[in-house]
Amino acid sequence: MTSGVSSPRLTFQLLATDGDARLGQIGTAHGTISTPVFMPVGTAASVKGLTMDQLRELGPEIILCNTYHLMLRPGADLVEEMGGLHRFTSWDRAILTDSGGFQVFSLSEIRKVREEGVEFQSHLDGSRHFLSPEDSIGIQERMGVDIAMAFDECPRSGLDRAEVESSMEMTHRWAERSLRARKGSSALFGIVQGGTFPDLRRRSAEFIGGLPFEGVAIGGVSVGEPKEAMLETMRFTAPLLPADRPRYLMGVGTPEDLVEGVAAGIDMFDCVMPTRNARNGTLFTRKGKLAIKNARYRADERPIDPECGCPTCRTVSRAYVRHLFVAGEIAAAVYNTVHNVWFYLDLMRRIRQSIASKSFGSFRRELLAESAAGDPEV
Amino acid sequence: MTSGVSSPRLTFQLLATDGDARLGQIGTAHGTISTPVFMPVGTAASVKGLTMDQLRELGPEIILCNTYHLMLRPGADLVEEMGGLHRFTSWDRAILTDSGGFQVFSLSEIRKVREEGVEFQSHLDGSRHFLSPEDSIGIQERMGVDIAMAFDECPRSGLDRAEVESSMEMTHRWAERSLRARKGSSALFGIVQGGTFPDLRRRSAEFIGGLPFEGVAIGGVSVGEPKEAMLETMRFTAPLLPADRPRYLMGVGTPEDLVEGVAAGIDMFDCVMPTRNARNGTLFTRKGKLAIKNARYRADERPIDPECGCPTCRTVSRAYVRHLFVAGEIAAAVYNTVHNVWFYLDLMRRIRQSIASKSFGSFRRELLAESAAGDPEV
Repeated sequence: MTSGVSSPRLTFQLLATDGDARLGQIGTAHGTISTPVFMPVGTAASVKGLTMDQLRELGPEIILCNTYHLMLRPGADLVEEMGGLHRFTSWDRAILTDSGGFQVFSLSEIRKVREEGVEFQSHLDGSRHFLSPEDSIGIQERMGVDIAMAFDECPRSGLDRAEVESSMEMTHRWAERSLRARKGSSALFGIVQGGTFPDLRRRSAEFIGGLPFEGVAIGGVSVGEPKEAMLETMRFTAPLLPADRPRYLMGVGTPEDLVEGVAAGIDMFDCVMPTRNARNGTLFTRKGKLAIKNARYRADERPIDPECGCPTCRTVSRAYVRHLFVAGEIAAAVYNTVHNVWFYLDLMRRIRQSIASKSFGSFRRELLAESAAGDPEV
Repeated sequence: MTSGVSSPRLTFQLLATDGDARLGQIGTAHGTISTPVFMPVGTAASVKGLTMDQLRELGPEIILCNTYHLMLRPGADLVEEMGGLHRFTSWDRAILTDSGGFQVFSLSEIRKVREEGVEFQSHLDGSRHFLSPEDSIGIQERMGVDIAMAFDECPRSGLDRAEVESSMEMTHRWAERSLRARKGSSALFGIVQGGTFPDLRRRSAEFIGGLPFEGVAIGGVSVGEPKEAMLETMRFTAPLLPADRPRYLMGVGTPEDLVEGVAAGIDMFDCVMPTRNARNGTLFTRKGKLAIKNARYRADERPIDPECGCPTCRTVSRAYVRHLFVAGEIAAAVYNTVHNVWFYLDLMRRIRQSIASKSFGSFRRELLAESAAGDPEV
């Protein structure tokens, strides 16, 4: 089975399906991406804890960087002057940037949201900035990313229907302006909003899906809604997205969330969970999560996850990693990040294999049962 | 030229000399060490900032760990239970531990120094501990290190002659007790003290050199003495040490200090300078030191040191490393540590080559002139 969008900026081929789960391939100027894919987050042009050599060894085909952070530090001008984000970081595979919208609304102090754009104060130094759809696309294109995101307003949790609708309509107008603003070679994805209101999500999916974006994302599902509402919105919205383009669920999630997303037909994910948890000492295993500081690992000679083949699990024990973590050693963050990022990437490999072999349904059931029942601490 | 000590615990061969500079080889159960050698410091069983895989790639043949830190956390019992320090850390090359003496006197609150040993409070949690020569040797042997150090008293700077002499005499008695205490397969090095008093240093060198240690160290030269006094003491003491055994200058120093040490006939060095400076953003180059946070590197596309072949300099620019450092990214510490440790190891390679080719004298003059005149910031 082969189909999908083909533009000079990005190609998408659907290779197989298993139920609603999709196996695909995205083509970019920086290589091919097998989907479903998880994108490790490199907020400030660095996947926290890893050098680019270490990251390369883990094998991600695409990473995400944050426009908000990069526009503030080191600044888009510098990244452009240094030859773009790939050359600046030495990362030679694909890069997706978000539009800055989500962080403007979640990290900065917002001065004013108006039709033109958002005036905000930097969380770093309080300096004032203005970001419009045109600015956001300009910044992303100047950084030379493979996939840019349209600038959207991400409504906070708890707004009423009229407020969410009004915000969604502005996101739609900003989506059109984002498309009109583009001049460069970055692919551009639109973002569906609409909170937890099915009719708004439907309208948004139809509107955004009707525009000539190379891919479509579901936004606003990791903004503090209860997990079930998030999953419900995702399950409702995913099948409404165009089938011929990559579908991206922004900012999600746990291993179980990824499996549920794939089951609903999502192709792309990103989340800070594996990297942030790593620095906090929370490690993923096939039998659930493990808090490495726990005294029960003091003399545990097993690797973090005996079923894992990552560079950390191949070389060091729980006891050693626990010691490093308790001692506050930088190497603890590094070993943990290597493990968690590998875990997420390996999960996606296993998901893709199961779709290819038409066994995703049983893979999904087993994974959910295992992680619900498992106790890696025993 | 081949000569030197040969015990079941350690062998030393002197391969060549150039003036007083010595090219040699130390044999241990965990491989051969080419001397003069610099030992990166892995205080708490981790060279700060690096995984063991990253460290291996940089190629040190021996690292140093601190008995004081390890006895407090994770404890010698645990390290022994985990199969020793090599197995615990996954480091399969040689390990030297200090005796704990230096840190007891520099980090902890000392309760009481008496003939038997030292009672002290942990700098971590105030818990009380006691360390005697017998304890120190026992801990080091139980951790299974290749080279253990005798337990010494390291007198602080500024003591008068009588105080230093009295301290030195206790160090001598502790040296004999350290030797009597050993039961295992670790080699044991003695430590020469005596402050900045030439006659005391001579007495100490003769006394310690007369005992059946596999190597002899100069202690007490990095305890706050002015640089010139340190170099003078080292130059005076080094030739008094037995020529048939490795000579180790503890806790020293800058690249220039290492060259001066080699010129005086020293074979082994350790210092936290490359790793600590890395975390502070101070980077070594062949033309002197560079503070990476400096704004002049904001858009500098050159590697940290254009003459360096380390993994950092092969992949990323000053501009990128500066960005990571300013942003507080963990990767900055990692990139910087990789570079600085490589710089030190590469310096020792160049020193060894120059001794082998009988050009150490000109190498030394050029290095000292270059680092005095150089400005890596231009």
